[in-house]
Amino acid sequence: MFLYKIDNDLSLKLIDLTDTAKVFELTNQSRGYLREWLPWLDSTTMIQDTQNFISGCLKGYSENRNLTTVILYNGEIVGTAGFNQMNWSNKTAQIGYWLSEAYQGKGIMTRVAKALTDYAFRELKLNKVEIRAAAENNKSRAIPERLGFMNEGCIRQAEWLYDHFVDHIVYGMLAHEWNH
Amino acid sequence: MFLYKIDNDLSLKLIDLTDTAKVFELTNQSRGYLREWLPWLDSTTMIQDTQNFISGCLKGYSENRNLTTVILYNGEIVGTAGFNQMNWSNKTAQIGYWLSEAYQGKGIMTRVAKALTDYAFRELKLNKVEIRAAAENNKSRAIPERLGFMNEGCIRQAEWLYDHFVDHIVYGMLAHEWNH
Amino acid sequence: MFLYKIDNDLSLKLIDLTDTAKVFELTNQSRGYLREWLPWLDSTTMIQDTQNFISGCLKGYSENRNLTTVILYNGEIVGTAGFNQMNWSNKTAQIGYWLSEAYQGKGIMTRVAKALTDYAFRELKLNKVEIRAAAENNKSRAIPERLGFMNEGCIRQAEWLYDHFVDHIVYGMLAHEWNH
Amino acid sequence: MFLYKIDNDLSLKLIDLTDTAKVFELTNQSRGYLREWLPWLDSTTMIQDTQNFISGCLKGYSENRNLTTVILYNGEIVGTAGFNQMNWSNKTAQIGYWLSEAYQGKGIMTRVAKALTDYAFRELKLNKVEIRAAAENNKSRAIPERLGFMNEGCIRQAEWLYDHFVDHIVYGMLAHEWNH
Amino acid sequence: MFLYKIDNDLSLKLIDLTDTAKVFELTNQSRGYLREWLPWLDSTTMIQDTQNFISGCLKGYSENRNLTTVILYNGEIVGTAGFNQMNWSNKTAQIGYWLSEAYQGKGIMTRVAKALTDYAFRELKLNKVEIRAAAENNKSRAIPERLGFMNEGCIRQAEWLYDHFVDHIVYGMLAHEWNH
Amino acid sequence: MFLYKIDNDLSLKLIDLTDTAKVFELTNQSRGYLREWLPWLDSTTMIQDTQNFISGCLKGYSENRNLTTVILYNGEIVGTAGFNQMNWSNKTAQIGYWLSEAYQGKGIMTRVAKALTDYAFRELKLNKVEIRAAAENNKSRAIPERLGFMNEGCIRQAEWLYDHFVDHIVYGMLAHEWNH
Repeated sequence: MFLYKIDNDLSLKLIDLTDTAKVFELTNQSRGYLREWLPWLDSTTMIQDTQNFISGCLKGYSENRNLTTVILYNGEIVGTAGFNQMNWSNKTAQIGYWLSEAYQGKGIMTRVAKALTDYAFRELKLNKVEIRAAAENNKSRAIPERLGFMNEGCIRQAEWLYDHFVDHIVYGMLAHEWNH
Repeated sequence: MFLYKIDNDLSLKLIDLTDTAKVFELTNQSRGYLREWLPWLDSTTMIQDTQNFISGCLKGYSENRNLTTVILYNGEIVGTAGFNQMNWSNKTAQIGYWLSEAYQGKGIMTRVAKALTDYAFRELKLNKVEIRAAAENNKSRAIPERLGFMNEGCIRQAEWLYDHFVDHIVYGMLAHEWNH
Repeated sequence: MFLYKIDNDLSLKLIDLTDTAKVFELTNQSRGYLREWLPWLDSTTMIQDTQNFISGCLKGYSENRNLTTVILYNGEIVGTAGFNQMNWSNKTAQIGYWLSEAYQGKGIMTRVAKALTDYAFRELKLNKVEIRAAAENNKSRAIPERLGFMNEGCIRQAEWLYDHFVDHIVYGMLAHEWNH
Repeated sequence: MFLYKIDNDLSLKLIDLTDTAKVFELTNQSRGYLREWLPWLDSTTMIQDTQNFISGCLKGYSENRNLTTVILYNGEIVGTAGFNQMNWSNKTAQIGYWLSEAYQGKGIMTRVAKALTDYAFRELKLNKVEIRAAAENNKSRAIPERLGFMNEGCIRQAEWLYDHFVDHIVYGMLAHEWNH
Repeated sequence: MFLYKIDNDLSLKLIDLTDTAKVFELTNQSRGYLREWLPWLDSTTMIQDTQNFISGCLKGYSENRNLTTVILYNGEIVGTAGFNQMNWSNKTAQIGYWLSEAYQGKGIMTRVAKALTDYAFRELKLNKVEIRAAAENNKSRAIPERLGFMNEGCIRQAEWLYDHFVDHIVYGMLAHEWNH
Repeated sequence: MFLYKIDNDLSLKLIDLTDTAKVFELTNQSRGYLREWLPWLDSTTMIQDTQNFISGCLKGYSENRNLTTVILYNGEIVGTAGFNQMNWSNKTAQIGYWLSEAYQGKGIMTRVAKALTDYAFRELKLNKVEIRAAAENNKSRAIPERLGFMNEGCIRQAEWLYDHFVDHIVYGMLAHEWNH
């Protein structure tokens, strides 16, 4: 497998269509949990929806616009992570991620976000990495904060989440600030 | 003409290919002036570049992703303005604009931004309008500030401008705050 | 709104997807009436059909091949009108239109056709405007006749209308003949 | 070869890319002659232009929108002919053709137009065949007239030919009138 | 019709959408017979499937990648044949074919394969023609063998046929070997 | 990096656009050497050609039709390898590869081909792997032979190489035969 090894129990693998069934199953298992902060649960009800998502990721990857991976924990797929957007003119990328409910609390997401930030600066030679989190999603906000990202602002009512708007905190890390 | 009349001397017209020559001429006349804050001058050197820009605008418009207009001042094209991005899931739009050097100082840009914000809330029923300006571009920042937009954050090194990065101030206005 | 104001109670607005529900409703209300002379009623049974029609209009507009508007009468959508085809090599355009049954008899269609002909000659700098009407559709034929278009021929069995062919009268107006 | 045999010395062959060099050569040999009535000579100056034309024909053919053939006279390509447009809703087709200067005066074009009209009614089961000719192009007009097509009208200034407009005579033949 | 006449009772015609109903009917009549060696029967259950197949053929033909014909025996469609792949860099083509059960035993397929090989060498100026047949499909293998093609190898488990793999024999004929 | 680690000094990495410069440089360094057996050298003369090749690889990858990697030897790109074609209906894939002249003689290609065959059977669950080599290219033929692939045939004049045809030996390995 084509892996980006993070440490002994964690790796990232570029997502492809052979991951469809597993990613859809994971979505179903954590549906209620994920739905609190992610907007795509209600439009992901059939395996075909996950397949369309992965096809979209692959098309974006082939055009160098994004990069999506599955997170492997001891060889098991436990979530996805990657760069939702890569802007080569401005040398910025935005990290997105989600993790199955059953694998919370192991520091997985922080290690993944750290590895992706490393990858953005060292391999892709980008200048800036952003992570956006809903203002009241403390778990998600803790990740960039733990990694030393700067809180650059609060974009009000940035996202519609089924029945209400949520504010987004934008966290940013510049290449010259990153010393991991 | 299909116009959105702002007041006695100002209107907006949906951009189309018949505007190519005039928009390119205007670009050439203000090239040095515009280049201080806009990133596309060096890649807009032939009329074909402006034509590609307008074709892209029209394609985005036909897919309901953006809306670009030419600004008419006493019947003359003096700049462009519009929604660079419209996000229908989140009900947000982002306003962008530029004005020929010769027409600065007449309050044109403020009236245009006000009219577009009105249009976003009243016609398009959006919830949020954003305007981004470079942190040191006081002229551009004055427009959302004059209209009462809130400064929601400073996105550091958000844009590469030929030979240096600039920070972006994000200004936001919510539908329920807009009383013009 | 981006309007082409004809007179105090009539304007044209470029059609867009926000018009879908209203245009479909209007189609349903006048279904029997419109079906006498228009071929698309039986293939326009769901709102999705109207949405596809509008998307097609917008794509053609973005490629400068047609221009479709909704007719606003005292602010209400009462029909559509526009240039079904624009041929830039030959500098010709063909006007098409339909009006809801409830708004017949107010001279709306004649004023709209006159305004579009004006637009073709004055704004688009075309040389020829054509209007085609079924030979036995007296109401539709009266419009170009009232505006002074010349009857240039009868194209026999030009159109299949559900269960029979109809002949088309081609009416033409040249730029140098137009003195309105 | 895939041929539609007309008589002992004439056949039609579906055009394909292997015909490019010969069709371009023929165009060059009759350039002055063809330019009197055809609008595409000045934009057909390189073999690549002819190749683009043939690719366009093949794409239209694969979508059942047109059918273009090369005319073979004693095995030599001497021109092209076919249906420029096929409208399956209205069951009409429009014949277009051109013949190299060197092969004029042998009745080739009349036999070809007759064969295509036959093909439209017998094989394609269409209802109407149209041929359009410039009003002052007597040679071209003689063909539908000789075959008994009816003159259905004169479409004024229908076509821009380099530096002036020409009127078009529309000739029509209905399936039930065709007794050849 | 555009025909490649093979002999008094056999011709080939480029496939087009007007053949859809007949080809689908033929498929249905020989479904059990054809299914023994062809992989597409179970995914060809509605007339729309045949239409998609023909559209695909026409698209490939318009891009010069393949050429598919219907076999006419005394004017009746009895099967299809053609070049599944044409490789213009390497100057090779691969012949594929199927014949309705009712028309077996008349030497039709051998005459068709001979005519297509002729066409590949004489008209298309290719250098190599290949025919692949399943190793145990004696009827299909007899055709290239009768025409003097050389058995160039046995590609093991080359094709999945519903519930088992079959080996393919590759037969080849070079242009300089062909003396028919 | 997303790597498939083969052993201590060898890994494969999915090719992407950041590899363009290095792959083009490698091509240039081994141009004469590679040209003996590969057909694409004369059409790969500018870095844009390599970029188009990689874009094509990425598009094929996003559609699950191929998978191309760069070979990393002690962290340096020394060639490319992958599956030129993956046929999911028939569960087959075809391996292709080239190695810079400077890195010949280290057993790199055999280890890479072994790893890709492993990947095809273990990860992709395919049934058959093919490797094709020109009949007189002993170095390339030695690789499948060393790995125990079966010689399944000699496809005569299968490929045009600048000025002559070459025969191809087809080597095949079935999943159940693979015991590495």
